[in-house]
Amino acid sequence: MKKLVNSPVDVVEEMIEGYVMAHSDYMSQLPTNKRSLVTKKTDKNRKVGVLIGGGSGHEPGFMGYVGQGMADGVAVGNIFASPSPDPILEVTKSIDQGSGVAFLFGNYAGDVMNFGMAAESADLEEDIEVRKALGTDDVASAPKEEKEKRRGIAGEFFIFKATGAAADFGYELNDVMRVAEKANAQTRSMGVGLTPCSLPQTGEPSFEIGDDEMEIGLGHHGEPGIEKGKLESADRVAERLVQDILADEPLTGGDEVAVLVNGLGSTPRMELYIVYRRVQQLLNELGISIYRSYVGDYITSLEMGGCSVTIMKLDEELKQTVDHPVDCPMFVQR
Amino acid sequence: MKKLVNSPVDVVEEMIEGYVMAHSDYMSQLPTNKRSLVTKKTDKNRKVGVLIGGGSGHEPGFMGYVGQGMADGVAVGNIFASPSPDPILEVTKSIDQGSGVAFLFGNYAGDVMNFGMAAESADLEEDIEVRKALGTDDVASAPKEEKEKRRGIAGEFFIFKATGAAADFGYELNDVMRVAEKANAQTRSMGVGLTPCSLPQTGEPSFEIGDDEMEIGLGHHGEPGIEKGKLESADRVAERLVQDILADEPLTGGDEVAVLVNGLGSTPRMELYIVYRRVQQLLNELGISIYRSYVGDYITSLEMGGCSVTIMKLDEELKQTVDHPVDCPMFVQR
Repeated sequence: MKKLVNSPVDVVEEMIEGYVMAHSDYMSQLPTNKRSLVTKKTDKNRKVGVLIGGGSGHEPGFMGYVGQGMADGVAVGNIFASPSPDPILEVTKSIDQGSGVAFLFGNYAGDVMNFGMAAESADLEEDIEVRKALGTDDVASAPKEEKEKRRGIAGEFFIFKATGAAADFGYELNDVMRVAEKANAQTRSMGVGLTPCSLPQTGEPSFEIGDDEMEIGLGHHGEPGIEKGKLESADRVAERLVQDILADEPLTGGDEVAVLVNGLGSTPRMELYIVYRRVQQLLNELGISIYRSYVGDYITSLEMGGCSVTIMKLDEELKQTVDHPVDCPMFVQR
Repeated sequence: MKKLVNSPVDVVEEMIEGYVMAHSDYMSQLPTNKRSLVTKKTDKNRKVGVLIGGGSGHEPGFMGYVGQGMADGVAVGNIFASPSPDPILEVTKSIDQGSGVAFLFGNYAGDVMNFGMAAESADLEEDIEVRKALGTDDVASAPKEEKEKRRGIAGEFFIFKATGAAADFGYELNDVMRVAEKANAQTRSMGVGLTPCSLPQTGEPSFEIGDDEMEIGLGHHGEPGIEKGKLESADRVAERLVQDILADEPLTGGDEVAVLVNGLGSTPRMELYIVYRRVQQLLNELGISIYRSYVGDYITSLEMGGCSVTIMKLDEELKQTVDHPVDCPMFVQR
């Protein structure tokens, strides 16, 4: 696939360089590690540092969510690959204010290992208390009884938002983690892939799919889904995704939720709004009300085609986190 | 190309429906016309109404820019087609506060005709003073001596932003239009297309291009550019686009500009930041400083691949408009 890049080996470094140049009022790159970015804007009430990270290629995830109201810093990996422990540790040291740091990342083997190693080093070498919360929102990736084995996909956006808000509320580490874990526990996602992406280094498609097919439950690095089927209408796709989420965590009339219809990269907003339309109809028919909705590219997979639906069940505390204003380079909410 | 749609003839109606459902705290659909959307949030200082519009398929343009700080209303056309005069007139009647309405749209024959007819009706039938400002920022589309013949592309975002801010400053219609025309006069764009999009109704690609080619100066409906060439590196593409803009309006050391690197639909943000990096390097080498930068999908062409660079030369008044906060469903600036 065609790419607007220079040398494929430089894409991440050059993206970061461009990003820090474009948003120099928001972002600093740490002198100790080029893959470590921290915010210049922090709420004065915040005690606990919030660190996010993961592979590149998911923009706005993850570096786009560093700023006021969300994360204090990010460790940036290669495309679809975990950052190594070093940049994670450097961000940790930079953002700790003495009250500990929350690590938020998706449940992938490489991330679990590298964030784990960085957490150990922070504890043993720097005496910084680190706690971890993993995104496990992808319903398709493991059965209901094993939610802890699931992958993190677009629902991580809600986890970052909730946790960032909790930190801004001045919560101590225990309470920040309680909110992060609650946000993850109450968040479910299901995705559908239409077209693959390709890595700049290889140019190979991330998965194979026919011209009239879709992949239900696809992971956001192209991991196979639970079912390959004929491409259906937007309404039928929305129905399937919502159905699978509700089968996993039944919601009932009177429940309030936040909804995200997330584009994987090359799906026009027009199509995302057509999907959103049916999602809201379905939830409203069940008496479930949508407290706030997000439609757009929030966690992508380069130029992959398709979308995911994420539903977070809200209580009063999570509603406050959803309403909390954010000012990040790639996401602003007033 | 694969689409997440229902019936192709319903895409615009269903998109609007989903959009108004998702953003019901921001947007109303007028009962008199389904293609007429108006904001629920208006600055109390604003006297002059700001109306935007054009074809669908450019999301966030145009309906995504209705809200506080930008437009008061939008008339929505079919994909890549002007809205008819009726929805334009209905929005005009709805947003006029007695001090007149500014019409902002791109310089395309259909838009010129339909916005012109709506302006006449507003004057003759409703006694509403309407003034028009056309976006003519696309350097590739006509020679320098005939800027008024040029197409409007991504630079329209800057015109909407400047004009919306001027309206919020409490300016009268004359001054609002002075700012709109200045913003357009000082804004230049150049785009490059890598891959076409396709209309849901036809499924046909919007233009033909080889696997190793790019189209320089491509219009955002797939209008042919000024040159088809081999796909080059991101740096070379950035150099070419900036060069063509600077040849058209020389900027000199000490000048301050706003820059937009706009994705056409399917180009990952990673690539846009790599392009931005070189744009800023080039401008800084000339002593031109970037007052504010925007990188992302601002005016798209469905799932077209490629990007454009827009440069707006700033004076003190335009800087104030650039800094002015905005709260719209698809664009927020604090």
